[in-house]
Amino acid sequence: MTSSVIKIDPKLDLVLERELDVPVELVWKAWTTAEHLRHWFAPKPWIITSCDLDLRPGGAINFTMRSPDGQEFPNTQSYLEITPLERLIITDTLLGGYRPSANPFFTAVLELAPNGKGTRYKAIAIHGNDETRKKHEAMGFHEGWGTVVSQMAEYIKAGRIPS
Amino acid sequence: MTSSVIKIDPKLDLVLERELDVPVELVWKAWTTAEHLRHWFAPKPWIITSCDLDLRPGGAINFTMRSPDGQEFPNTQSYLEITPLERLIITDTLLGGYRPSANPFFTAVLELAPNGKGTRYKAIAIHGNDETRKKHEAMGFHEGWGTVVSQMAEYIKAGRIPS
Repeated sequence: MTSSVIKIDPKLDLVLERELDVPVELVWKAWTTAEHLRHWFAPKPWIITSCDLDLRPGGAINFTMRSPDGQEFPNTQSYLEITPLERLIITDTLLGGYRPSANPFFTAVLELAPNGKGTRYKAIAIHGNDETRKKHEAMGFHEGWGTVVSQMAEYIKAGRIPS
Repeated sequence: MTSSVIKIDPKLDLVLERELDVPVELVWKAWTTAEHLRHWFAPKPWIITSCDLDLRPGGAINFTMRSPDGQEFPNTQSYLEITPLERLIITDTLLGGYRPSANPFFTAVLELAPNGKGTRYKAIAIHGNDETRKKHEAMGFHEGWGTVVSQMAEYIKAGRIPS
C-alpha cells in the first residue's frame, strides 16, 4: 500500500477493525457494486430501497434507507479515492461532482488487505471536531458498522457474489 | 480531456474564462508550486505570507493572506484531483487527509488547455446552494479571481518561472 495521506486522530476519529473469513476480492465487490451493497449496507431491520453508485472520484453515491416504521432517508455522498482491493474513500461533505453538501458530517476510509484466505478489514470515520465524533458514537457507530460488516460476510458466505 | 465528473450549474456556480498569452506548462507550475503561487495568488495589495502545498489527492493546501492593514487570514484546503497540465480540483470543505472542515464553502475547478502558444484558462467555483454563490459573488469573485489571473500572467511574462 502506498504511503497514506490519511492521518487518524484518536480524539476525533472512530475505527472499526475486523478479521473476516471471506476473500478481499469479494469484500471489494460487495462494497463497490450497487446490487450487492443494497443487501447488506443497512443494519436490519432497516433496509435499502434504492442504491446507485458512480464509482469514480467525484462520482455520487446515492442510496435510500427505510426505517422499520417505513420512513425513508435519502443519502448522497461522493467517492474521493478508489484503489481496487485496497482502499476506498468516501465523504458526505461533498455530493456528486464535488459539490459541497448541505450536511457535512464525516469522511469514511475503508482499508482492506488479504490475510490468508480472509480479509483484514479496517473502517475509519474521520470527523472535523469532537462534537461530530461524539454524535457519531452516540448514533451507534460501533454497533451499526459492526452489524453491517457481519451482514456483508454472511451475504458473501451465502454465495450471493459470483467469484 | 476525459469525460468530466464536473457538472456546472449556472444557478449555483461561478465561472471565469480567459485566454492567456502564456504557455500552459508555466500556468500549471504557477498553480502547483508554493514558491510561485505565493507571489500572485492574493490580489494586491493583499499578500501571501506563507504557503505550503502537499500536491496529491487529500493533500493539504495551507496559505496565509495578509490584508493591507496587517490582519492575517490563514486558509486550509485540500486537493481532490490533479491531472497535470489539464485539471486541478481543490475544495475548502475538506482539510488535509480529507478531514471535514469547519467552514465549508466551495470547490474550485481549474481547467487548462493549450491554445497555440497560449492557454485557455477556465476557473469554476462550485457551491452547494444559492446563498454561498451569492456570498461569493458579493465577496468579489469576478474581480478577485480576474485580478490574480492577470498577476499570474505578469509573473510568468517577467520570466519568474524557469521553463
